[in-house]
Amino acid sequence: WRQGLPEVVYCAGKTVEQSVAILLRQAQVGSGPLMGTRAPRAVYDHLEGRGYDFEYDDEAHLVVLRRGVPEPQGQVLAVSAGTADGPILREAEVTAELMGAKVERLIDVGVAGLHRLLGHLDTLYAARVIIVAAGMDGALPSVIGGLVDVPVIAIPTSVGYGANFAGVAPLLTMLNSCAAGIGVVNIDNGFGAGYLAGLINRGGCP
Amino acid sequence: WRQGLPEVVYCAGKTVEQSVAILLRQAQVGSGPLMGTRAPRAVYDHLEGRGYDFEYDDEAHLVVLRRGVPEPQGQVLAVSAGTADGPILREAEVTAELMGAKVERLIDVGVAGLHRLLGHLDTLYAARVIIVAAGMDGALPSVIGGLVDVPVIAIPTSVGYGANFAGVAPLLTMLNSCAAGIGVVNIDNGFGAGYLAGLINRGGCP
Amino acid sequence: WRQGLPEVVYCAGKTVEQSVAILLRQAQVGSGPLMGTRAPRAVYDHLEGRGYDFEYDDEAHLVVLRRGVPEPQGQVLAVSAGTADGPILREAEVTAELMGAKVERLIDVGVAGLHRLLGHLDTLYAARVIIVAAGMDGALPSVIGGLVDVPVIAIPTSVGYGANFAGVAPLLTMLNSCAAGIGVVNIDNGFGAGYLAGLINRGGCP
Amino acid sequence: WRQGLPEVVYCAGKTVEQSVAILLRQAQVGSGPLMGTRAPRAVYDHLEGRGYDFEYDDEAHLVVLRRGVPEPQGQVLAVSAGTADGPILREAEVTAELMGAKVERLIDVGVAGLHRLLGHLDTLYAARVIIVAAGMDGALPSVIGGLVDVPVIAIPTSVGYGANFAGVAPLLTMLNSCAAGIGVVNIDNGFGAGYLAGLINRGGCP
Amino acid sequence: WRQGLPEVVYCAGKTVEQSVAILLRQAQVGSGPLMGTRAPRAVYDHLEGRGYDFEYDDEAHLVVLRRGVPEPQGQVLAVSAGTADGPILREAEVTAELMGAKVERLIDVGVAGLHRLLGHLDTLYAARVIIVAAGMDGALPSVIGGLVDVPVIAIPTSVGYGANFAGVAPLLTMLNSCAAGIGVVNIDNGFGAGYLAGLINRGGCP
Amino acid sequence: WRQGLPEVVYCAGKTVEQSVAILLRQAQVGSGPLMGTRAPRAVYDHLEGRGYDFEYDDEAHLVVLRRGVPEPQGQVLAVSAGTADGPILREAEVTAELMGAKVERLIDVGVAGLHRLLGHLDTLYAARVIIVAAGMDGALPSVIGGLVDVPVIAIPTSVGYGANFAGVAPLLTMLNSCAAGIGVVNIDNGFGAGYLAGLINRGGCP
Amino acid sequence: WRQGLPEVVYCAGKTVEQSVAILLRQAQVGSGPLMGTRAPRAVYDHLEGRGYDFEYDDEAHLVVLRRGVPEPQGQVLAVSAGTADGPILREAEVTAELMGAKVERLIDVGVAGLHRLLGHLDTLYAARVIIVAAGMDGALPSVIGGLVDVPVIAIPTSVGYGANFAGVAPLLTMLNSCAAGIGVVNIDNGFGAGYLAGLINRGGCP
Amino acid sequence: WRQGLPEVVYCAGKTVEQSVAILLRQAQVGSGPLMGTRAPRAVYDHLEGRGYDFEYDDEAHLVVLRRGVPEPQGQVLAVSAGTADGPILREAEVTAELMGAKVERLIDVGVAGLHRLLGHLDTLYAARVIIVAAGMDGALPSVIGGLVDVPVIAIPTSVGYGANFAGVAPLLTMLNSCAAGIGVVNIDNGFGAGYLAGLINRGGCP
Ligand SMILES: Nc1ncnc2c1ncn2[C@@H]1O[C@H](COP(=O)(O)O)[C@@H](O)[C@H]1O
Ligand SMILES: Nc1ncnc2c1ncn2[C@@H]1O[C@H](COP(=O)(O)O)[C@@H](O)[C@H]1O
Ligand SMILES: Nc1ncnc2c1ncn2[C@@H]1O[C@H](COP(=O)(O)O)[C@@H](O)[C@H]1O
Ligand SMILES: Nc1ncnc2c1ncn2[C@@H]1O[C@H](COP(=O)(O)O)[C@@H](O)[C@H]1O
Ligand SMILES: [Mg+2]
Ligand SMILES: [Mg+2]
Ligand SMILES: [Mg+2]
Ligand SMILES: [Mg+2]
Ligand SMILES: [Mg+2]
Ligand SMILES: [Mg+2]
Ligand SMILES: [Mg+2]
Ligand SMILES: [Mg+2]
Repeated sequence: WRQGLPEVVYCAGKTVEQSVAILLRQAQVGSGPLMGTRAPRAVYDHLEGRGYDFEYDDEAHLVVLRRGVPEPQGQVLAVSAGTADGPILREAEVTAELMGAKVERLIDVGVAGLHRLLGHLDTLYAARVIIVAAGMDGALPSVIGGLVDVPVIAIPTSVGYGANFAGVAPLLTMLNSCAAGIGVVNIDNGFGAGYLAGLINRGGCP
Repeated sequence: WRQGLPEVVYCAGKTVEQSVAILLRQAQVGSGPLMGTRAPRAVYDHLEGRGYDFEYDDEAHLVVLRRGVPEPQGQVLAVSAGTADGPILREAEVTAELMGAKVERLIDVGVAGLHRLLGHLDTLYAARVIIVAAGMDGALPSVIGGLVDVPVIAIPTSVGYGANFAGVAPLLTMLNSCAAGIGVVNIDNGFGAGYLAGLINRGGCP
Repeated sequence: WRQGLPEVVYCAGKTVEQSVAILLRQAQVGSGPLMGTRAPRAVYDHLEGRGYDFEYDDEAHLVVLRRGVPEPQGQVLAVSAGTADGPILREAEVTAELMGAKVERLIDVGVAGLHRLLGHLDTLYAARVIIVAAGMDGALPSVIGGLVDVPVIAIPTSVGYGANFAGVAPLLTMLNSCAAGIGVVNIDNGFGAGYLAGLINRGGCP
Repeated sequence: WRQGLPEVVYCAGKTVEQSVAILLRQAQVGSGPLMGTRAPRAVYDHLEGRGYDFEYDDEAHLVVLRRGVPEPQGQVLAVSAGTADGPILREAEVTAELMGAKVERLIDVGVAGLHRLLGHLDTLYAARVIIVAAGMDGALPSVIGGLVDVPVIAIPTSVGYGANFAGVAPLLTMLNSCAAGIGVVNIDNGFGAGYLAGLINRGGCP
Repeated sequence: WRQGLPEVVYCAGKTVEQSVAILLRQAQVGSGPLMGTRAPRAVYDHLEGRGYDFEYDDEAHLVVLRRGVPEPQGQVLAVSAGTADGPILREAEVTAELMGAKVERLIDVGVAGLHRLLGHLDTLYAARVIIVAAGMDGALPSVIGGLVDVPVIAIPTSVGYGANFAGVAPLLTMLNSCAAGIGVVNIDNGFGAGYLAGLINRGGCP
Repeated sequence: WRQGLPEVVYCAGKTVEQSVAILLRQAQVGSGPLMGTRAPRAVYDHLEGRGYDFEYDDEAHLVVLRRGVPEPQGQVLAVSAGTADGPILREAEVTAELMGAKVERLIDVGVAGLHRLLGHLDTLYAARVIIVAAGMDGALPSVIGGLVDVPVIAIPTSVGYGANFAGVAPLLTMLNSCAAGIGVVNIDNGFGAGYLAGLINRGGCP
Repeated sequence: WRQGLPEVVYCAGKTVEQSVAILLRQAQVGSGPLMGTRAPRAVYDHLEGRGYDFEYDDEAHLVVLRRGVPEPQGQVLAVSAGTADGPILREAEVTAELMGAKVERLIDVGVAGLHRLLGHLDTLYAARVIIVAAGMDGALPSVIGGLVDVPVIAIPTSVGYGANFAGVAPLLTMLNSCAAGIGVVNIDNGFGAGYLAGLINRGGCP
Repeated sequence: WRQGLPEVVYCAGKTVEQSVAILLRQAQVGSGPLMGTRAPRAVYDHLEGRGYDFEYDDEAHLVVLRRGVPEPQGQVLAVSAGTADGPILREAEVTAELMGAKVERLIDVGVAGLHRLLGHLDTLYAARVIIVAAGMDGALPSVIGGLVDVPVIAIPTSVGYGANFAGVAPLLTMLNSCAAGIGVVNIDNGFGAGYLAGLINRGGCP
């Protein structure tokens, strides 16, 4: 199973050698998209010139092999509250793209300046599924969830300090959201959010 | 907006009088489905004979007005790990039904007896979206998520004791799931899971 | 010191007899406003016919003696996210009133239905200080704080369930608010918020 | 809106390049005060010679552009319990200054040596609003709150070790203060406290 | 061993029958003081008329047999912040008394009204060891510890609500006290504090 | 006592000098197996050429002296969920080996890919005791515990991020396991798990 | 599978009717031992006269059907720290008995009175596996684990108050035990400990 | 006040320059003992040749000026469970010494090897007050507290890993100790324990 879906290697708990070896093996045995998350650049450096068109995403620390990606369809909207949520949102976007999603983005629209969000209602209404990454108070998914009638995937990020507890504050905010239709993933889990959004985006029309 | 979607009143923080008044008002102003969650039977008793066909679900403590519900379509599968997860799963099922979903159920298939789950792979594979309610160790969504390629909505329940911390243990399990494609809702939030599943189930084919 | 300010007795940790005795003593020795918070009705019953015009607030469980209250001035706006936040907000309102504040209210304007809030921007802009009570995700103060340029006093309420942890979720949301100008009080501490708002409201013009 | 109020850039979650770019843009589009918090000195270094009179505060790690600051008025008193609370208090002071507040300071007056505080009652009584930064046990705002009748803004700092939990201990102390009239901000949030104090200080006399 | 020290039975986790049986047995085999803590009145009722002069303390829920108590000596001072801390402080006092301590008390001297404490400096300076019970913010031991040069035994009480977490807030405050010379016992552990104070009070002069 | 059992030195909290000195002393006074856990390679370097056949395990950071080890008997099965659990599992394996256990291993069989585990049922059924190391969601022991009728020793590892809380999530999962027959050790405590498995493996046949 | 092992129904999350129905069904389909844990007496009352020799254990709230129990063999020692740990220990004992274990007990031997434990070293040394139930500080398993060379199964109980956090304190103590050879189960999980001990006790000699 | 007691500077939250300046000032204005805790060696280096006989304690990171120390009297016993608790215990010892205490030590006597402790009962019985430092399970104070009838000051250390939570596990163990007569200080607070022990040791005989 899992055909048509990207293979993903989580590189954080592995040595560079282990990551490289696993990624090369996956590149050989399969023909679909491949991704290494939380990968230091050194992983990419070792992969260059080994016969595959790996790319490296500096912001999200991703090693990506874009092959066998379905024609982009549907509409996934990726939204962030602030600049520092960028890398996590990017991880989500790339994941969704590898799953065949057309991905739009709307960044820096946190709730403390509501006009930034309300100026893009059309973009919000056009999406089939929305990913929202937010740290600090994590209030953005609640507001967006109240505006739309499509699934919202909420990613709490570890952006913040003090009583933020490395993302626990926005995690709790999102789990307790007053708006319905919100699914939450682990803190900083851009991959998980992108994957779930990708499934939802393609799932409807088999 | 919100047309075609059920109106929901959360009765837990309200007096019986408040709940009844709000539900009647909603019944008057709208024409779609209506639901009161966490409602003591007394709420239902006060609603009888007031001109609307409210029903009461004893297991999930729901007051329901099934009107204007779309023709059942798609396939939402509702799964529980143990008997005590029943009321929460039921809340999710009814919510999804009011949103026009065809709902199947698979109960008491916790991971400590894997054969119970593996005997129903066909049912799992037939679903467009799967809701999984589990307390105790909350391991079931990880196993199911690994078996299917559709979105899984995981509901941690407060079933357990000691270091379960009223659902925190399964909540963390689900947020940390090794399987991809899982969105988590608040502890015991059957409504939220059903709503999200309902959106996903209908969302694909506009 | 403390002249012109209300005397307050916290009745929750006391027997009815203790509360009554303290309140009567305070009524005798002073001539200003007097309030008993978290007081069961029995406290009020014992105070009736003892020579003071005590009132009882059923919603907030307050015993109040309105005497020597300064002429209402300024503008304190008391806002709640949902119905269940009512008793806590009421405690705040009465406290501020006893301190000489003119108090307006705006209720049930939680962020999941943003139009409810945005329909009252005039009311928001007219306030000198705003009290916001919210449970669940506690996102309302962030949104309001972003709209106004006056102090916002945020009260997390224990309204919610599961990973709400009896008000911890909205408490953290409020402490981590992206909007500036927000001071937070203890969970369910309507009195503290009303008192602080009262000080701010009168403080400016000595 | 927000006119007359400082623009603030939180530099902690950004690269030096990002911080510099945002600060320069803000310097261009506006004419009021501007501040970068938690900014490494490198941010300041890149800003020098770019046409604006940025200053750098070594203690609080602030980049500051003092322009369009209103004439100092009112009286904000900034108090710290110990030497190590200095940087956080300084962040609060500068913020309040940029908002047009006259700022006094009273440092190292923690409750373990009460005579240090009691020797400055005049200073305490002269303030219109008081900011108190304290780590360790966080007891100082309770004592000060009991002495004055003006708003107290309490900042828990992450100064301490062991069961201090990086500021959680003083945070809880402050939220549970027996004294009324205290608003709490996030751990180490000097900016937020200064901003709220600034609003209160100017707010009273429009 | 343990001669001259009171025998203590913790009745909270036991049935009335179990508590009575153990207390009677202890009364028979020993000749020194005996105490049952957290004992419902029913325990006392069953002990009456069984041949021992048990007393019952209604405030602290103590069953006490005062026999073989050494002549009161030294000076233990028992201090409370508020009325609701009374039962816990009483448990501490009785325990210290049974160990031969002369016990003084100073109640309702919480830090929010510092004059109440500062009006009794003589009493503070006269003590050989001081017990301080406080809930809410738990700041009192820090202030007292800074005023005296004798051991301070701090008891956090579960008095408070919200972010008090049933005594965790004052527990942390006391563990993080800026004043030196403070030993902390468990939340609501009046017995433990009284016992430790009793040991210190008698220990010095063998 | 403790004869036939390995001596173990926990090197993490010690300087290299302290660790080396203690290990050498133990090597001299005893004649059985000896192990230093969490030992930097430097410890091993200092032990070389000192007259004992110490080995170093690079994966688990172990210094090992294999002498006086009983003939391997029984069957301990060591299982891991993912690659990153390797070092902890290895620590457990070596410990069990030094206690005379025959040790098998089954790695990378996490529940998200159930077929990996179900392909090795024979190996599972052949064990007398099973050690399972898992991070992330920690669900593997529940699934294995449901498949076998022998003791399962569960090791939560600190592998994961966000709401994993450095191993707390799998720890809670394992403590709340729906399957019976599971004993849990501290997070990352490979040694403890190996020791307990070693005792069980040999214990049965005295 | 699971032959020769008791069937167990966890009655806490079920209605009396559900528990009775499941227990009767299990009694019919099997021929081995059967047990209902956390069962109110009403469950037993409904089972009487239904054709099976169910017994009820008042202390541990167990419904037990002792049939097909293997001849007692081996030696499981069940130890408790205090009286209040009794019900949990009893649950463990019965479970182990149903699995064919000979069970001894040693009660009220908490570490605060070490002589109580040290007077029974022979009993300790005679056991093949030891179950230890302790609340409060949970220190007993560490002491016992240091005295014996057999597996110790530690049960933290919810006996205690304040910073005990309903068993979290002894749970952490046990997980961090300095003694090797200890496996921990969930707070109050007597069943789990008895089951694991039963497996270990029989496992050795197939 | 505070005469005859050491002056102490907590250097952790200060720059080397700040620490040096404060220590020199204290050296000048006073004539009694002086100590800097958590001081990097650089502080000592800057103090050398400045006219005072400062010493540096490498284990505990203390800067000490031993002058005006009273003649050693009484008996403080300093006990540790393991090697890694050494630096914290040392901080306590030096503090007590500066307060005029005669200090004995008993190290590495953790409860997992009870014979180590029981071999020194005479030393235990000779003390007037006992300081016990322990990490891991923190069980040692409970055992010692049960053996003696003098005050025990318990220091939880941050020695441990996993569910030790940097000292929280032993902190909770100590707060919940079954033995009476134990006062607890903050995690790693050797100074606080030494100070309290010093007060108790001298306090008895005025
Ligand atoms: N950034 C990430 N966060 C969470 N899960 C991930 C991430 N990247 C990969 N994964 C999951 O981890 C699996 C691979 O784990 P591994 O076998 O350890 O590389 C993938 O199949 C994904 O399900
Ligand atoms: N609902 C409340 N929440 C928090 N603090 C309160 C409340 N009501 C009264 N207080 C404070 O408690 C003090 C009175 O406490 P007491 O002397 O125990 O009655 C008042 O001066 C207030 O500062
Ligand atoms: N007291 C208990 N604590 C933990 N688990 C239990 C307990 N009693 C029964 N169980 C487990 O719960 C399972 C039965 O759950 P259920 O099907 O909900 O009755 C049994 O197979 C046991 O593994
Ligand atoms: N290691 C320590 N742990 C806790 N408190 C300390 C420590 N060292 C010094 N102190 C306390 O901190 C005070 C000095 O704080 P400071 O004025 O910041 O140097 C002393 O009077 C002691 O009460
Ligand atoms: Mg929505
Ligand atoms: Mg899947
Ligand atoms: Mg604002
Ligand atoms: Mg005040
Ligand atoms: Mg003192
Ligand atoms: Mg099993
Ligand atoms: Mg052992
Ligand atoms: Mg003792």
